[in-house]
Amino acid sequence: MSKTVKIALDEIKTMSVEILTRTGYGEAHAQAIAEVLYKCQLDDCQSHGLFRLLMCSQTMRAGKIDGHVLPVITKSDNAILHADARGGMSLLAVNEALPKLIEKTKKHGIAALAVNNCYHFSALWPEVEELSKAGLAAMAMVPSHSWVAPAGGTRGSLGTNPLAFSWPRQNQMPFTFDFATSAFARGEIELYKRAGKSLPEGVAIDKNGKPTTDPSEALQGAMLTFGGHKGSALSIMIELLAGPLIDDLTSLESMEFAAGTGGAPYHGEIILAFDPNLFSKGRADANEARAERLFADIIDQGARLPSQRRFKARALNLERGYVEIPQALYADLQAL
Amino acid sequence: MSKTVKIALDEIKTMSVEILTRTGYGEAHAQAIAEVLYKCQLDDCQSHGLFRLLMCSQTMRAGKIDGHVLPVITKSDNAILHADARGGMSLLAVNEALPKLIEKTKKHGIAALAVNNCYHFSALWPEVEELSKAGLAAMAMVPSHSWVAPAGGTRGSLGTNPLAFSWPRQNQMPFTFDFATSAFARGEIELYKRAGKSLPEGVAIDKNGKPTTDPSEALQGAMLTFGGHKGSALSIMIELLAGPLIDDLTSLESMEFAAGTGGAPYHGEIILAFDPNLFSKGRADANEARAERLFADIIDQGARLPSQRRFKARALNLERGYVEIPQALYADLQAL
Repeated sequence: MSKTVKIALDEIKTMSVEILTRTGYGEAHAQAIAEVLYKCQLDDCQSHGLFRLLMCSQTMRAGKIDGHVLPVITKSDNAILHADARGGMSLLAVNEALPKLIEKTKKHGIAALAVNNCYHFSALWPEVEELSKAGLAAMAMVPSHSWVAPAGGTRGSLGTNPLAFSWPRQNQMPFTFDFATSAFARGEIELYKRAGKSLPEGVAIDKNGKPTTDPSEALQGAMLTFGGHKGSALSIMIELLAGPLIDDLTSLESMEFAAGTGGAPYHGEIILAFDPNLFSKGRADANEARAERLFADIIDQGARLPSQRRFKARALNLERGYVEIPQALYADLQAL
Repeated sequence: MSKTVKIALDEIKTMSVEILTRTGYGEAHAQAIAEVLYKCQLDDCQSHGLFRLLMCSQTMRAGKIDGHVLPVITKSDNAILHADARGGMSLLAVNEALPKLIEKTKKHGIAALAVNNCYHFSALWPEVEELSKAGLAAMAMVPSHSWVAPAGGTRGSLGTNPLAFSWPRQNQMPFTFDFATSAFARGEIELYKRAGKSLPEGVAIDKNGKPTTDPSEALQGAMLTFGGHKGSALSIMIELLAGPLIDDLTSLESMEFAAGTGGAPYHGEIILAFDPNLFSKGRADANEARAERLFADIIDQGARLPSQRRFKARALNLERGYVEIPQALYADLQAL
């Protein structure tokens, strides 16, 4: 970051709500979105913090999202919770559904939340971390737009399809990760283009399906998954579980639905939650110690657990009471 | 394969049961193991077919497994099924539990099977494929021994931790994959060693934690995960879900338990199953079409869906009525 602007912690939400309201979101949506922007910005997760206000505004300008619609959560006796976002942003639906998902998981041992008909722009880790605060393990998956080619393919079929996971730890931050199954994030390729830099090998193909390190050609072609055919298989699994399984769009369909209008993609999301108490028949403490031993063995050899940079940023920003964002972003936000 | 021996399909199980019985497995275990060896051998999955009779015999000689013990499946009202293998091989417990898992999944929409206290040597795809035959999507995970270093680490903490997934397709073989989260299978490194070949970069580290392409040094050091820090995070997730979550051993603990005796590792297994009918509230057909469109788009660009080689081998072997195994393996099996 070159020039930055300091934003006091209590201003992050106020500013976000104010901008979201001004750009067309009702109070309930503005609050839910502001909450997650705050969490991301607090962790110096610049790509999913206040920066995303630009995408929220763009999504509204694209004209399809409903900024006021209230989600409908359907009750059921089984272990699946359906939250219909009804064409609004995902976060309000998720906020309302999570306490019910926790309840269902503590009853059934394992439960799933299917969020349908939502616009989606946010990181998944705030949602799985929230479930771990309630003592649950959790997994979350979403499709996106079909920018990513399958292994051995020549064009985009798959989304960037992130997978997030969280495991609760007593008196400590949870073990949490949240990664795109594409080798690079789409935004990273745009940053390489702006900086006039070449991409590493194995990240993208051009519009003819040939490997390329040119970010402009990559943006006209397709991205590749991480991890070759294994990453590609994992990405297809995410398409299926977060799309057809839950009666919602694949990344191919989401891209068609958007028809080039830009903004957040429209699709579904699946969250799975696991209750360690019921799985281990009351021996959760002994098993927590097993997990801790594994973490200790990883750390002892100088390897890092995921999310440590985020957690460190959170502690620092909470202590100093402010976050820093690029001055250019601050100017863009003021202009919204 | 250089010299091979033809084995008639109906001889695969007979021969397996005969060898397993002779080496100390009771009838029920021998049948369950033979069934999965048949499935793997039928698909020309040489690494998990009749070859594994050697490991079954070695596991018995290691002296800890119980070849006669019957598994206990615990009934519950929730969505978790516990199958206690009580120190026997996993397959009998899984066989007995799968019909109950299908029932539970069709009731709750999502359900999990925790298999505990089992020796495990088998591929996971036969189990998830079986669930897809019942119209379910399924995921399976197991730890193994701590041969695999975490990203940024210098020694083994993680197992080869395979992930298998299957999605049901009408009138077609399911979409199924089953891959180790290690970059290479341990057996592959042994094959490189025997052939005097160098490993590719990024597959292993030596006992000092330095990258190596020497298979002997790799076997004394540790393997690496596929896909860098993302593959490593996924592998840790598998440790947690298939170990501490279900009250069973991590790969570190499983390695200690074996204490160098060899044979199949002892640990647990988790299988998750999803009912597309309940998830999509009866719109499974429309959603099946969505998934098929994705598969068609992948195939249309010349990319392959996983497991196609296996399915092709299955069709060929079923038609010709026999499989081929290396002559050296045949001799080894006769000597058991």
